[in-house]
Amino acid sequence: MLFQELISKRQSVRKYQEKTVEKEKIQQLIEAVHLAPSACNSQPWKLIIVNNPELKDKVAKATFSKTVSFNKFVTEAPVLAIFVFEKAKLTARIGGSIKNQEYPQYDIGIAAAHFCLQATELGLSTCMLGWFNQKKIQQLLKIPKKRKVALVITLGYEPDAYKQRKKIRKPLDEICGFNSY
Amino acid sequence: MLFQELISKRQSVRKYQEKTVEKEKIQQLIEAVHLAPSACNSQPWKLIIVNNPELKDKVAKATFSKTVSFNKFVTEAPVLAIFVFEKAKLTARIGGSIKNQEYPQYDIGIAAAHFCLQATELGLSTCMLGWFNQKKIQQLLKIPKKRKVALVITLGYEPDAYKQRKKIRKPLDEICGFNSY
Repeated sequence: MLFQELISKRQSVRKYQEKTVEKEKIQQLIEAVHLAPSACNSQPWKLIIVNNPELKDKVAKATFSKTVSFNKFVTEAPVLAIFVFEKAKLTARIGGSIKNQEYPQYDIGIAAAHFCLQATELGLSTCMLGWFNQKKIQQLLKIPKKRKVALVITLGYEPDAYKQRKKIRKPLDEICGFNSY
Repeated sequence: MLFQELISKRQSVRKYQEKTVEKEKIQQLIEAVHLAPSACNSQPWKLIIVNNPELKDKVAKATFSKTVSFNKFVTEAPVLAIFVFEKAKLTARIGGSIKNQEYPQYDIGIAAAHFCLQATELGLSTCMLGWFNQKKIQQLLKIPKKRKVALVITLGYEPDAYKQRKKIRKPLDEICGFNSY
């Protein structure tokens, strides 16, 4: 598949079949994250794959509440992938501090893109979530308090009838300039 | 090319031929950024393509100094791509504020990954840089003071003799866990 087709096909999917995700595919997703680049090659992440059904259900429920219900679909996904921030290398921390930059956040964005695009190629669907109960997920997955959860990604097979949406984007000239802002 | 091959092939390239990058290829890179996902579909970025040789040289020189010379290679790249933070949608800003998250940084990481992987498929090479003189680049590209430069990416053709390096990464079990940190 051409890269252009891959990025056109990838979309946030909010409905899943019960079908289990094969171990080999999960392994390939981990490999895709493993190869992601990062500032000073810090690899400031830990990826936790949650596929134990009961635990997965608890983590899913930590992404919504009675008042905020837009993530309710998360319980349907058979797998959740959790990105946790790890300490970056000293060089990246010093550089980021001098330049007022948070490199690990770019790094995890890149690694998450690797995960979701690899999933798309494997016929799987994903949705990246930045809204969740930090403390609850830390407790459920035994994440040390000083390690912050960055993103939660749902993973699974979408229903056969799930539709490819047309991507709604800003006009090109609004997101791009040549030689000047 | 399989996605796994694409991410294995992509590497930070710090040496470039003088060869110009074709307009059609630049257009395809912009398209790849255009399709990138973002929190609440905010698309909180502007991508500035700098290919005017004199201006490009000045921007390149804003990525190093007499004391910090590790980016000197940047002057060799025929094109520089500059990611600037744009204001995210209100929903993303409120969500980020409640959850103590900076979604635009993940978003720009994802968009930068799209850019670099599309470039790799097109036979081009890149290097993402988070170290640069913010103010100088803002002035050179007429970027409003309130809009911060996020990343600079070098773009061009690497020399024929440029070698594919083996990727050095942490052991898999250090970056990944199942159902627990």
